[in-house]
Amino acid sequence: MNYRECAKLLKQHDDFLIVTHNNPDGDTVGSASALCSALRRCGKRAFLYPNPQFNRKQRPLAEPFLAPEGFVPAFTVAVDVATEQMLARGFSRGADLCIDHHPTNSHYAKQELIRDEKSACGEIVLELVKALCGDVTRDEASLLYVALTTDTGCYQYDNTNAATLSAGAELLRLGADSPNIIKDFFRKVSPARLRLEGMIYSNMRFYRGGKIAVALITREMLEKSGATPDDFDDLAGLAGRTEGSVVNLTIRELPNGDSKVSVRSTKEVSSSDICAAFGGGGHDMAAGCTIAEPPERAAELLMEVVCAVYP
Amino acid sequence: MNYRECAKLLKQHDDFLIVTHNNPDGDTVGSASALCSALRRCGKRAFLYPNPQFNRKQRPLAEPFLAPEGFVPAFTVAVDVATEQMLARGFSRGADLCIDHHPTNSHYAKQELIRDEKSACGEIVLELVKALCGDVTRDEASLLYVALTTDTGCYQYDNTNAATLSAGAELLRLGADSPNIIKDFFRKVSPARLRLEGMIYSNMRFYRGGKIAVALITREMLEKSGATPDDFDDLAGLAGRTEGSVVNLTIRELPNGDSKVSVRSTKEVSSSDICAAFGGGGHDMAAGCTIAEPPERAAELLMEVVCAVYP
Repeated sequence: MNYRECAKLLKQHDDFLIVTHNNPDGDTVGSASALCSALRRCGKRAFLYPNPQFNRKQRPLAEPFLAPEGFVPAFTVAVDVATEQMLARGFSRGADLCIDHHPTNSHYAKQELIRDEKSACGEIVLELVKALCGDVTRDEASLLYVALTTDTGCYQYDNTNAATLSAGAELLRLGADSPNIIKDFFRKVSPARLRLEGMIYSNMRFYRGGKIAVALITREMLEKSGATPDDFDDLAGLAGRTEGSVVNLTIRELPNGDSKVSVRSTKEVSSSDICAAFGGGGHDMAAGCTIAEPPERAAELLMEVVCAVYP
Repeated sequence: MNYRECAKLLKQHDDFLIVTHNNPDGDTVGSASALCSALRRCGKRAFLYPNPQFNRKQRPLAEPFLAPEGFVPAFTVAVDVATEQMLARGFSRGADLCIDHHPTNSHYAKQELIRDEKSACGEIVLELVKALCGDVTRDEASLLYVALTTDTGCYQYDNTNAATLSAGAELLRLGADSPNIIKDFFRKVSPARLRLEGMIYSNMRFYRGGKIAVALITREMLEKSGATPDDFDDLAGLAGRTEGSVVNLTIRELPNGDSKVSVRSTKEVSSSDICAAFGGGGHDMAAGCTIAEPPERAAELLMEVVCAVYP
């Protein structure tokens, strides 16, 4: 389906419920909210499914669009949701339409608008909103700027390309409030998060001349810093800031004492091979698993596997 | 002068010496190196003045262009240098041409190409290289991408606008090596820097409900972390990551025991007013001064002034 066909399809329906993904990120929330706004401008009744996992930064974006209790949708749209299992918790309907950019999309929806060359789903929704309304409001541009920047680490991730930056330029021209978005999503963190980062960096461990970097986050550190799950954004990326590191392990102690492990690596080493040894999985350069041991013991077990996979 | 006129002027001369600014940053090094490369492609002899302050990340960019000893220039070009006082240390000639984007440029050069609406000098040099050569090489695009991203905090500073992102998109289309530039200039830091950040964050002080954030960096912390001046990039920005902070002070103990102070603030408070009280200066939202006292005492003196300026 192309953008025009998708816009035509949407115009034929009404009473939309738009659903975001599990563990929502800025791309799913920003894209879904912008689409909802555009549908309303077309005279449609449209709401977002109230994803119970929206966090402190995401809630204000979704707020104006949340479906009231008892709303009965006639057409559902999944935005940035790769598989049916990834649909927001508690959402029990199928998807009439899926708008997505994940190459791993499992084609679960009745109809779909998939552009897997896009860095962010927000780039797809930008084109769709133009096809729907002929224009884009400032608020929609801001929502889509959240989508674009959060999914590309503010143009720092390797998925950033010329088209990403062109879309960013277009959104700024449309009035996206870059200063406040950057402040809220990239620049500012809570004092608790700063304290936690301080503890993590102060206690980082380096092995094999710095090729392996390990960050341990214990319950004690979480308690002392006062950090809450709202402060956990991209904690797994901190260990990877070390120059020369090839494998980065972030081991966070869970409330029950087990260890949640995030592995990041360069292309040399397969993160998913490391996590597979513990029943986890993921991608070549980013994977995760849970180990039913306290962090210190989990670190020992992980190091054994890392040394086998990356001798 | 417009870009075409500037290109014409350059084509009329030869034996170029291009000079960067004092305390060089990515914009001055990247822009100057890209211009030097383009002049060579036009058949000119062109070199960079060997700025003694180029740091570990900047040196590899400038290396292929550094003037040999005894080189006698016939035409000098200052790139990204706002005032004569800002010319690289030891550079004792005047500037025949100045290419710059600073609104504070003091018009010290014989001729000038100034575009103060540009976020980075690299955007000006991009247009100039196109006017000079008709095209831009991959290496030039990479040098200019360093210029553009470092001067805008990878599109996070408030000087970022649609034109900045469009220039970024153009440079990526021209083949700029974004992944490696982002890694070297934004993503990766030395283990010593990580340790230092850990100490800074762990010892941050907050006053007045977090509206004032103070980072103290003592000689002991520098020694324990192993950090060198190459690790000092944007240390002054760390305190400002705190949510809700209005005034951020970073106080670094100098080798002689005095305190180097950087103040950052929101628009509510004048950073330069605070620093003026100690004989320093700067801008409304970023200023600096040196206080001939150890850090703890400097912090006390500063807090008195902050409370007077921002009651």
